[in-house]
Amino acid sequence: MLVARVIVDVMLKPEILDPQGRAVQGALGRLGLTGVADVRQGKQFVIDIDGELDEDRRAKFEELAGELLSNPVIEDYRMTVVANDEAGA
Amino acid sequence: MLVARVIVDVMLKPEILDPQGRAVQGALGRLGLTGVADVRQGKQFVIDIDGELDEDRRAKFEELAGELLSNPVIEDYRMTVVANDEAGA
Repeated sequence: MLVARVIVDVMLKPEILDPQGRAVQGALGRLGLTGVADVRQGKQFVIDIDGELDEDRRAKFEELAGELLSNPVIEDYRMTVVANDEAGA
Repeated sequence: MLVARVIVDVMLKPEILDPQGRAVQGALGRLGLTGVADVRQGKQFVIDIDGELDEDRRAKFEELAGELLSNPVIEDYRMTVVANDEAGA
């Protein structure tokens, strides 16, 4: 069956403070990992689609990635199509 | 300066129910994207390290990725070194 897999990574914009990332940075240091300069924590959506991801659905997808999956005021998103072809059921 | 960037993706194991992903799947459908078969939502950590990521620090990193950044009972993680060389300041 034709299936597509799309990954959407959502990350706070660089100028937005990331307290979760900062907490992880501190914890990594305390637990013995030296030289951690910066940590940013984001979200990742792995989305499987039935059938091929054609132009129309891809455009709709881009729209929803920018408006539903991420908050355009404070977040950036990156959409990656990792598969768009024949795959096992 | 020598810097390394590591990305750790943390995702619920396939057999664990993902209510956030299920909610996103429903919302994508209601907002007009057809054929969404499955959505899984995970976390992504983007970590910048001062200096090269040598074998020792890499092993420490793997340990912390599996214990601090993810919960091994319910989550899988994937660690990707995306840069480990000279970069602009």
